Amino acid sequence: MLVIGENINASNKSVAEAIARRDEEFVANLARAQATCGADFIDVNAGIGHGSQEDEMAAMGWLVEVIQAAMDKPLAIDSDAPHIIEAALHKYRGERLIINSVTAEPARLASISSLAAERQAWLIALAMGEGGIPDTVEQRLAACELIMTHLTRLGMKAEQVFFDPLVLPIAVDASQGLVTLKTIEQIKSRYPDARTVMGLSNVSYGIPKRKLVNRAFLLMAAYAGLDAVILDPLDTKTMSVVKVADMLMGKDPSCRGYLRAHRKGNIVD
Amino acid sequence: MLVIGENINASNKSVAEAIARRDEEFVANLARAQATCGADFIDVNAGIGHGSQEDEMAAMGWLVEVIQAAMDKPLAIDSDAPHIIEAALHKYRGERLIINSVTAEPARLASISSLAAERQAWLIALAMGEGGIPDTVEQRLAACELIMTHLTRLGMKAEQVFFDPLVLPIAVDASQGLVTLKTIEQIKSRYPDARTVMGLSNVSYGIPKRKLVNRAFLLMAAYAGLDAVILDPLDTKTMSVVKVADMLMGKDPSCRGYLRAHRKGNIVD
Repeated sequence: MLVIGENINASNKSVAEAIARRDEEFVANLARAQATCGADFIDVNAGIGHGSQEDEMAAMGWLVEVIQAAMDKPLAIDSDAPHIIEAALHKYRGERLIINSVTAEPARLASISSLAAERQAWLIALAMGEGGIPDTVEQRLAACELIMTHLTRLGMKAEQVFFDPLVLPIAVDASQGLVTLKTIEQIKSRYPDARTVMGLSNVSYGIPKRKLVNRAFLLMAAYAGLDAVILDPLDTKTMSVVKVADMLMGKDPSCRGYLRAHRKGNIVD
Repeated sequence: MLVIGENINASNKSVAEAIARRDEEFVANLARAQATCGADFIDVNAGIGHGSQEDEMAAMGWLVEVIQAAMDKPLAIDSDAPHIIEAALHKYRGERLIINSVTAEPARLASISSLAAERQAWLIALAMGEGGIPDTVEQRLAACELIMTHLTRLGMKAEQVFFDPLVLPIAVDASQGLVTLKTIEQIKSRYPDARTVMGLSNVSYGIPKRKLVNRAFLLMAAYAGLDAVILDPLDTKTMSVVKVADMLMGKDPSCRGYLRAHRKGNIVD
């Protein structure tokens, strides 16, 4: 399972404050800590939800420079705005790269896909269009099909695409866990060369012991065909579950990865 | 998820000692504790692996009497020997009943299936024949087919059958987790009215943090189609995961069962 570390996100107050005071040490440490804990990619999101576009572009550029100087993992540039992504790409010197994300919404799909195609990046594609997250598997697959058709036209390969099936809170609709899991299965069946990715936390919105529920959902999703996950790599229990998932899915021959993590004290129950 | 409490098993030393001294209080408490913690059935296994058949028949009869006097959950009579099962049935007054278990091995299949058919019991059927646990999904399904054909001839319905896909240690063969999970899926697809059941602990044989691995496997199996599980209901973490699995599988509308368990302090991370 590919792990995308989610911690450098300006919607976290401490990150927003570090950005505001241009605290290189704080950001560099947070990047390094995630890499040390097993993140394969470091997500970078400079959006604070208010403030000017220029400020966010400057913040994104600064973050990318600081993070890539701090460690050698590739980045996932996280924004729904093409000019913010461009500000990141302008500073990014790495070869491997994820752009996070497009939807089937036409303007966003056109502009962000072009950036991904030019840069030969991997691209996270959310299974939704203009109307928000669809309730059904079929509607989510329809959004995936629109996106895949467009990306193919641009010359992108299925191998570059990470579909996010999206998840709605089960507290609102008990069937939504299964909707997400079946969407993963269907995506893997329709686009065998594409991969799937997911954030976990929406599923448990509004219920207690959220992390327990998120980890359980991750394990079910691993069996449904999840290839990558966006999470907090500093959460040792969750990272333990990633290792267990790989082992149970036959992706860890002789349990080597699991046993190595256990010897380092990183398998926590 | 149906929970079968596994604790009253003479292969546990404390249980064997309680049987030897006919300690009614010990056995009754262990039955009640499992029922209180959410077991739907109480498994009863009197086999100590040595000693005479007569001793085991007497022990089984005594256990059944003591346990059914102690609480009102139905029993799962656990033996591979028809005369031991008969000794239990002779004492058992309950209506609902599981017989645990048959295999495709002809003599065992013939004798134990007849007892289940006569008594209209539910029957656990292990996906194996004479040669031990098969390595492949196909061989396990072949054993299921032999069993189902025989049971159908006896007039038993698929609804009475709980197939156990069986699990071999992933430490020995990394693919065995997937073999079990795919066997569950295939059983549910071929016999939509039959159910599936599994014990968890074999999967983690020989690796550290076994309970963490067992619980992870339970979650994957729930998504693959597992209907019932044989476990220690006194293990609150494992029982929490059963509740989470039901919730994520859409079997707990408005998360009522989960929230009730949480209020009682029974959801443990």
